[in-house]
Amino acid sequence: MPVYKIVLAYDGTDYHGFQIQANALTVQFYLEKALAALYGSSIRVEGAGRTDAGVHARGQVVSFAAPALIPEMQLPPALNGLLPADIVVVGAQQVAESFSARRDARGKVYSYTIDNGNFPDVLYRRYAWHIAHPLDLREMQKAAAYLQGKHDFRAFQAAGSRVKTTVRTLFSLEVTKREQFISLYFKGDGFLYKMVRNITGTLAEVGRGRISHSEVARILEGKCREQAGVTAPARGLCLEKVLY
Amino acid sequence: MPVYKIVLAYDGTDYHGFQIQANALTVQFYLEKALAALYGSSIRVEGAGRTDAGVHARGQVVSFAAPALIPEMQLPPALNGLLPADIVVVGAQQVAESFSARRDARGKVYSYTIDNGNFPDVLYRRYAWHIAHPLDLREMQKAAAYLQGKHDFRAFQAAGSRVKTTVRTLFSLEVTKREQFISLYFKGDGFLYKMVRNITGTLAEVGRGRISHSEVARILEGKCREQAGVTAPARGLCLEKVLY
Repeated sequence: MPVYKIVLAYDGTDYHGFQIQANALTVQFYLEKALAALYGSSIRVEGAGRTDAGVHARGQVVSFAAPALIPEMQLPPALNGLLPADIVVVGAQQVAESFSARRDARGKVYSYTIDNGNFPDVLYRRYAWHIAHPLDLREMQKAAAYLQGKHDFRAFQAAGSRVKTTVRTLFSLEVTKREQFISLYFKGDGFLYKMVRNITGTLAEVGRGRISHSEVARILEGKCREQAGVTAPARGLCLEKVLY
Repeated sequence: MPVYKIVLAYDGTDYHGFQIQANALTVQFYLEKALAALYGSSIRVEGAGRTDAGVHARGQVVSFAAPALIPEMQLPPALNGLLPADIVVVGAQQVAESFSARRDARGKVYSYTIDNGNFPDVLYRRYAWHIAHPLDLREMQKAAAYLQGKHDFRAFQAAGSRVKTTVRTLFSLEVTKREQFISLYFKGDGFLYKMVRNITGTLAEVGRGRISHSEVARILEGKCREQAGVTAPARGLCLEKVLY
């Protein structure tokens, strides 16, 4: 059967994450439901990454095998007609039958948005972490510089995770500000569980002056979760792109 | 009693507009409820403008008289603790006892956001009108130029409205594009009922090539609602500022 790769955007606010699970409404559940309605048979998809509850995506990638019934161009409009308004298929193409959205991914790009206004921008409250205390952008940028490159990111992994190796390469981590919003833009070959949110929480504490920028290098070297900052809330996080 | 002026931002998606009404959840209802809880007595507010159901605000202005119990600086945090998360007080000051948010307003600024991407940006779907057909920005800008200045805007007033005069001055109407979003920025001394949404609907038809830019001048002169375009949906509209 032909294999398709689709690119998916969603507002994660009202979902229990991407991955299908019993007794919870997830993005995968709705996507497979739409595919079943479209193809008239049950289709199992594979996502490039498991976004957590409340996390958004502009570029999640999903692969699945399906009968050669629908041209790739027609997949987005057909699926969008069957999906809830907060899940949108933004691209589709037929790919090699060996393609796997998860296995073939060479990296991911995540953004994290902090709303640093005196008051939260009410139209961004679902998509940003509001911190009223003014954050020092320069200090956050200096701290971010230590984290770029290939490191053991164990200190920024959620406690209790088990993976073969905690070494990852962060190709880049940019911290920029526009109006009252601070954006953190992470590009890496892979991310440990809650790594982006744990780094963001730590950089926020640097911005507040609770942790000096040079301490971040020591936290990284210490490889101990307890030394790092809080986990930033899910709502500011967005999976922007999966790299192949 | 002292009179206070507060500036209010809200996500209008889940409200039946600003103004209080029987059997409907409105922004004013929640604001007066919060004020009653704060002051221990019923307080009636006056809004600068009545935003419709689904319309947002970043700078709605409200005035009310209240006992001299709470310093103006403390009003925003105190009220925000009592308001739903999608209504935020972003400023407060004590003003002259003669001040009226509605009567003293000299103008208003509204923005309207069109999402002109192939697919809707899912994180903006509550705040933008998605039009997949590519719109011609230059044509929209030319049409907008005819509307600036002092005119009888009867053609852009919702049918059935009754006001003394339909003459208004549109100080400026800017049409700009950033990424996939087209923003219309209206600054005027006053707006007729649904005028911003009716002008937006007409300019969208200009952008699609269904109406030529010069026809907009004729529609304005014709003073006939039927000649103008559709009413753009509420969700793209935001009351940015009230001018005093």
